[in-house]
Amino acid sequence: SNRFVLIAGPCAIESEEMTMMVAAKLKEICEELDIHLIFKSSFDKANRSSVKAPRGLGMKRGLEILQRVKTELDLPIVTDVHEAWQCAEVAKVADMLQIPAFLSRQTDLLVAAAQTGKIVNVKKGQFMAPWDMKNVIDKLRDSGNENILLCERGSSFGYNNLVVDMTGLVEMRSYGFPVVFDATHAVQKPGGQGTSTGGNREMVPYLMRAALAVGVDAIFAEVHPDPDHAFSDGPNQIHLSRIKEILEQAIAIDNITKQLAVSNKQQ
Amino acid sequence: SNRFVLIAGPCAIESEEMTMMVAAKLKEICEELDIHLIFKSSFDKANRSSVKAPRGLGMKRGLEILQRVKTELDLPIVTDVHEAWQCAEVAKVADMLQIPAFLSRQTDLLVAAAQTGKIVNVKKGQFMAPWDMKNVIDKLRDSGNENILLCERGSSFGYNNLVVDMTGLVEMRSYGFPVVFDATHAVQKPGGQGTSTGGNREMVPYLMRAALAVGVDAIFAEVHPDPDHAFSDGPNQIHLSRIKEILEQAIAIDNITKQLAVSNKQQ
Amino acid sequence: SNRFVLIAGPCAIESEEMTMMVAAKLKEICEELDIHLIFKSSFDKANRSSVKAPRGLGMKRGLEILQRVKTELDLPIVTDVHEAWQCAEVAKVADMLQIPAFLSRQTDLLVAAAQTGKIVNVKKGQFMAPWDMKNVIDKLRDSGNENILLCERGSSFGYNNLVVDMTGLVEMRSYGFPVVFDATHAVQKPGGQGTSTGGNREMVPYLMRAALAVGVDAIFAEVHPDPDHAFSDGPNQIHLSRIKEILEQAIAIDNITKQLAVSNKQQ
Amino acid sequence: SNRFVLIAGPCAIESEEMTMMVAAKLKEICEELDIHLIFKSSFDKANRSSVKAPRGLGMKRGLEILQRVKTELDLPIVTDVHEAWQCAEVAKVADMLQIPAFLSRQTDLLVAAAQTGKIVNVKKGQFMAPWDMKNVIDKLRDSGNENILLCERGSSFGYNNLVVDMTGLVEMRSYGFPVVFDATHAVQKPGGQGTSTGGNREMVPYLMRAALAVGVDAIFAEVHPDPDHAFSDGPNQIHLSRIKEILEQAIAIDNITKQLAVSNKQQ
Repeated sequence: SNRFVLIAGPCAIESEEMTMMVAAKLKEICEELDIHLIFKSSFDKANRSSVKAPRGLGMKRGLEILQRVKTELDLPIVTDVHEAWQCAEVAKVADMLQIPAFLSRQTDLLVAAAQTGKIVNVKKGQFMAPWDMKNVIDKLRDSGNENILLCERGSSFGYNNLVVDMTGLVEMRSYGFPVVFDATHAVQKPGGQGTSTGGNREMVPYLMRAALAVGVDAIFAEVHPDPDHAFSDGPNQIHLSRIKEILEQAIAIDNITKQLAVSNKQQ
Repeated sequence: SNRFVLIAGPCAIESEEMTMMVAAKLKEICEELDIHLIFKSSFDKANRSSVKAPRGLGMKRGLEILQRVKTELDLPIVTDVHEAWQCAEVAKVADMLQIPAFLSRQTDLLVAAAQTGKIVNVKKGQFMAPWDMKNVIDKLRDSGNENILLCERGSSFGYNNLVVDMTGLVEMRSYGFPVVFDATHAVQKPGGQGTSTGGNREMVPYLMRAALAVGVDAIFAEVHPDPDHAFSDGPNQIHLSRIKEILEQAIAIDNITKQLAVSNKQQ
Repeated sequence: SNRFVLIAGPCAIESEEMTMMVAAKLKEICEELDIHLIFKSSFDKANRSSVKAPRGLGMKRGLEILQRVKTELDLPIVTDVHEAWQCAEVAKVADMLQIPAFLSRQTDLLVAAAQTGKIVNVKKGQFMAPWDMKNVIDKLRDSGNENILLCERGSSFGYNNLVVDMTGLVEMRSYGFPVVFDATHAVQKPGGQGTSTGGNREMVPYLMRAALAVGVDAIFAEVHPDPDHAFSDGPNQIHLSRIKEILEQAIAIDNITKQLAVSNKQQ
Repeated sequence: SNRFVLIAGPCAIESEEMTMMVAAKLKEICEELDIHLIFKSSFDKANRSSVKAPRGLGMKRGLEILQRVKTELDLPIVTDVHEAWQCAEVAKVADMLQIPAFLSRQTDLLVAAAQTGKIVNVKKGQFMAPWDMKNVIDKLRDSGNENILLCERGSSFGYNNLVVDMTGLVEMRSYGFPVVFDATHAVQKPGGQGTSTGGNREMVPYLMRAALAVGVDAIFAEVHPDPDHAFSDGPNQIHLSRIKEILEQAIAIDNITKQLAVSNKQQ
């Protein structure tokens, strides 16, 4: 199957119980929909707008919980790293390491992530052009790792706003690595609520469909059982109760795009 | 049918022969694909980058040719107006008047266009937010015209570049008027070639599919039998020989989106 | 003297009395400060956000009032034109014709303005790069007019915001024509108040000083005796009671910059 | 004296000899011009566009050289930190720690820098609004440090370009901490040369003068004896032979602005 892969989970590991519950529910939905799921959750929100905002359970406890998801639910795991020394430790549990957008040009972090041999998913900085990712790819390849994902999560557009340039997805795909569209961070309004980041979760299904109509290899989406009370990223996370319906829309568009791609190749 | 309407034709009325040929060919394709076609071509390119660039055949000759398209091919006609005095004259031939993006806040032009009673298609200025179009709507409604189309053609994104904010399509649709996506102007690089505007026609099908996956009521696309030698907008016009295939892709996506919309309403 | 020229006046000709009063007061201040003043006011606000917003007294009455300013106060006059047919009429009174930013690529308007033989002040569109003005210059020169001013009034920066790229002033000055900095429109928040344009008049003196420190030939500023009750552009017009103090700051900076320029040339 | 402080030095510590030479020369110039100098150079360029680009001599060797500048030339030292663990070590030598723009929201780095008790100079991220810096201030203050500098180095403006919003300097100054204008990074074209960042060093004096005319407390500028052969940031560093003349211009503008500020306070 060439269906899009789904990278999903709650933004932060808020508790073991909630993490297991969301992972189990996502697994059930994805099995029903025949979607390959990679479970994502963060052990530390390292760049919160405010120092008072909760950051999560920390690396040690977070990795224990992710290991439980991996073992009990048999799901591959991705989580994000923030400083180079974390990579080796995180790689003991995670199948994929994620580089946050603000850190996408930090050479040491990229090299350390690459050297784990795990898949590396790099979010394109909000301050970068699609073609700037070629240098990121080179940093990872020169470190001996070809298992690279390039992730679009929006570009700075004036103050406290992002815009998604859909042509960037086409551009990045031409570099020969799978492209991920991060549908929930793309609707953020950075800093838009004074001491926290706003967002518009109603727009998630629309941008997800648009990206899949352009053609992407994976969708990234943060999902929460109660977004309005989430630790982080509440305004842009999808409610767990809505994710199935949104994925059904996504599959319908993706099926068409993948058929078009096959038919283009056959011509 | 709730399939998207197509507004298409060569950017400029370069000659009677070419205009008739393209109109006939587009009509044939759209009949085959069951798409409602509105023929578009401009009698004057009033805001060329350079004064030396050709501008077209002028209003009198242009309207004669558009009248021939209308009569002989039985196609509805849209063309753009640049100063208020042109509206009444153009409305004798055109079924729809188009307001260019740079002129989308010129009150006299909007009022004169509205007062013809014809449909008015307003291109959102590259300097406007989606919600700024509410004031445009009010200008037209206050002039007694409710036959309004809102057209997205990209927003200024730094110098010599545009970006399409796909969430703007959702926003504008919420105002209760049909929304058009202009797939060929959205790929322009304004002023990007020094004395003319560049563009990237390869991106047209991708943006068209993205907009249709979000949900729009009409697609606008400029089509030319030999874009590299077009009077104007060469870098972004679609080659006439490719339009059928691009429309087939568009229909495939649009069918899904319109089904999703119906199923959402039924829930 | 190489001191900056001041182009100033109330945004709109609201009444004969107010226009004469402001013009007389500005004249008095500029004589005291040894600044060359060109009086500016608009007979029509042709691109208001809302159709309900007042537009001014119209061309006929407006030109009569501007003629009175010219005759009685012996001040040169500039006012803006919106459609080509207005240029010849306006040129009977005005010493300088101004092209609004949204219209800065309308070839017919530029040509008609150029053909009056009057000085033409073109506001750079919010959607244009500084170097895009080279095409505007060519349009005017090819129409036989070398009396050109290039005016910076800010660039689109996300939605409902402008930013001034101060390096654009240097770039435009290199084209050999005087450069104007429009200090009051540069602080606008276009569409930022829903049905009208917002602004931040507190920032005017800062941007004016910045532009003069870079080096410009003229300052454009709208001045009103009661900005909070102005027809138009209230949030960004300067209060008449504050203009003298702001100009004194401007002179202090301009004197230094012009000295630096002289000293650079002597090296 | 309320004259601006100068934070300057070569972008990277390329060698002991070159570092000492530039520091000595800058010290001599600043003594002559009565400018307070803080010497800046980086031991590691941690976010180069390309992994192949040189990064500097590393932390240990770099700090030894900075210590020599401090001891032999009696200059205060600032250098940038990239991961939290570096802060305590760097603070043994540096009088001020600098947070790179891409890292300006990394809570751990800000907290670790604050906890050294040294002055912390935070570069505003290219993806941040001026008011987003209030959260950065809170992170530092909540960590017990009130010795904060806020530094403007440009905002993302489309792809591969930055723009300086001069009104942001006024906004940030209103928060009660000194504001620095980084005149050399503000002229960068990020990623603009494919595998490296471009820039336009000719614009540095203009932006520096503009910022000083608005009013800032310090100027940041990278200076190199041979910018075209610099390890890093060649296109935007100032040639050492030009810095004196540029500073003389800066002083002339700063003197006026500081006089205006004093006269405003007296009113």
